Amino acid sequence: MTTARVTIKEVAARAGVSKGAVSLAFNHKPGLSEATRERIFQAARELGWAPNPTARTLAGSRVDVVGLAICRPARLLGLEPFYMEFVSGVESVLTEHSCSLLLRLVRNVEEEAGLLETWWRSRQIGGSILVDFRADDPRVAVAERLGLPAVAVGHPSLTGRLTSVWTDDATAVREAVRYLGALGHRRIARVGGAAALGHTAIRTAAFDEAAGALELAGAWQVTTDYSGEAGARATRSLLAAGPADRPTAIVYDNDIMAVAGLSVAAEMGLSVPADVSLLAWDDSQLCRLTHPTLSAMSHDVHGFGAEVARTLFSLVPGGAAGSRRMDTPVLTPRGSTAPPGG
Amino acid sequence: MTTARVTIKEVAARAGVSKGAVSLAFNHKPGLSEATRERIFQAARELGWAPNPTARTLAGSRVDVVGLAICRPARLLGLEPFYMEFVSGVESVLTEHSCSLLLRLVRNVEEEAGLLETWWRSRQIGGSILVDFRADDPRVAVAERLGLPAVAVGHPSLTGRLTSVWTDDATAVREAVRYLGALGHRRIARVGGAAALGHTAIRTAAFDEAAGALELAGAWQVTTDYSGEAGARATRSLLAAGPADRPTAIVYDNDIMAVAGLSVAAEMGLSVPADVSLLAWDDSQLCRLTHPTLSAMSHDVHGFGAEVARTLFSLVPGGAAGSRRMDTPVLTPRGSTAPPGG
Repeated sequence: MTTARVTIKEVAARAGVSKGAVSLAFNHKPGLSEATRERIFQAARELGWAPNPTARTLAGSRVDVVGLAICRPARLLGLEPFYMEFVSGVESVLTEHSCSLLLRLVRNVEEEAGLLETWWRSRQIGGSILVDFRADDPRVAVAERLGLPAVAVGHPSLTGRLTSVWTDDATAVREAVRYLGALGHRRIARVGGAAALGHTAIRTAAFDEAAGALELAGAWQVTTDYSGEAGARATRSLLAAGPADRPTAIVYDNDIMAVAGLSVAAEMGLSVPADVSLLAWDDSQLCRLTHPTLSAMSHDVHGFGAEVARTLFSLVPGGAAGSRRMDTPVLTPRGSTAPPGG
Repeated sequence: MTTARVTIKEVAARAGVSKGAVSLAFNHKPGLSEATRERIFQAARELGWAPNPTARTLAGSRVDVVGLAICRPARLLGLEPFYMEFVSGVESVLTEHSCSLLLRLVRNVEEEAGLLETWWRSRQIGGSILVDFRADDPRVAVAERLGLPAVAVGHPSLTGRLTSVWTDDATAVREAVRYLGALGHRRIARVGGAAALGHTAIRTAAFDEAAGALELAGAWQVTTDYSGEAGARATRSLLAAGPADRPTAIVYDNDIMAVAGLSVAAEMGLSVPADVSLLAWDDSQLCRLTHPTLSAMSHDVHGFGAEVARTLFSLVPGGAAGSRRMDTPVLTPRGSTAPPGG
């Protein structure tokens, strides 16, 4: 290991150009001839010099790489429209800033907390997006201790003093249940997401509260892993009871489970919405491609990802940005919801 | 800018530990007490030392970060099951190696070629996955010139001397057309992907060849941007002709367009498969969630991504690995295909 570091000045001198020209070449900016660029790269190679990504990512005003760790099994990730839409929204803003996303699947939040520390200390990232908060999430303390510029996607009750971007899930769940109640449904079920997640708990509590307020005759909630298979299983189990005992309406925590529920109803000879109303969540393109089309709690997931990325960029220079509540998902009625028996 | 670089030895000395312990701490490996780790990080902070990612990514036997640039509009990416399944397969192997994926959306291959050079010269990646090859793709020459360890996802006729992992699209298209022909269809259409892509051209030529061999009474091909909307539009246009003139079978280049096609048939009062047979491509979970379920040309996209990542790892130490053809997509008949009028 050498202890004397080659400087950009030496590279510039060897190539016979200015330091600015070396910088242009390595940042792949226009303004240099191909021959000059090649001479600069040649000089850098001979001297063993490479630009220090550290200087760029930590300069304060610029982030080249943003980290995102996702704690979901790889298999599931490919089937969940939410994440890909979210990531595409993040990427749309990163691209404007010539920034890349460093993506990693992790097994648990502890692993993610360790990874954040490694990424940050080895200067691989200039900031990070944190998703899927749990109660007492260890990432809050780690991000604070490191001084890591981070935007938390989650309700402020879960994200400590981190800047958060969030949606009001409780209000949206109450709205969904009230809508089904207004249609005349008295037996309503919810097929929820992963039990360990903070926003699942928030939705579960809100559903209980809304069901209580309406004095429903029947209210069911199940948690799943968000997969289509789990959604199908839950729907089959809920609809297996006799016509007088089963739910007449089901609300799902994502789209793919609602699409699976639609297929299960057909398989069981039940008509949607005459026998059972189905209400999806997130409202990706899928909901408009089924027959009947799926009513859904809609929000702009792509725009959500974009806003999270914009908030991160606003955070980095000064170190502070206010938390921001996104628009609450709104009901988009389509063909899959109607009065019971209607 | 300082010219004397702090070494790991100095950090170890200041923290009163071995160099190995510093390495453990920064690689987030077990075997150190929390107090020791904190002392090491403290010493590194005081000396302004950080591990050099360069040393790790270019050591020859290890890649910490793998690059993947995708040349698709952000919006589309979120709606295309293929990419998320592919990425999830890549991630499943990267995770085993404690590796992250550096993801970037680009506007064109020229931008990607420049980005690869920047990533590689600034040592942000140890290797890259290249997708969506075009004829005369500039990335081939760039990767060769840089000596960048890269795996090309595409037919060897498109990927030059790069190691490639590919599927035999031509054989699969011929198989799809022959199957529909064997059911008795004489008017067959294909709703294809993006015209600029090499594998779209390969599929188009194979379709023409198969249609010619079967002396079909009618054969149509259209290209799209792969979106559900474009698939719906193409299907509507194909089915607008009278019953004696329109296709009785349509094969799609992905899943989401076939799902959209199913919805268009319902909207136009046509029964699937009695009035028109639909055949999807890729066979994500979506195909089993529609009603009727979608027949599809099936391959394991998750496994494809995993194999690409494994090939990249096998490439990096020695610099050579053979190109590899994946299993050809096979026909999975389900509810959306039948003899015409059946």
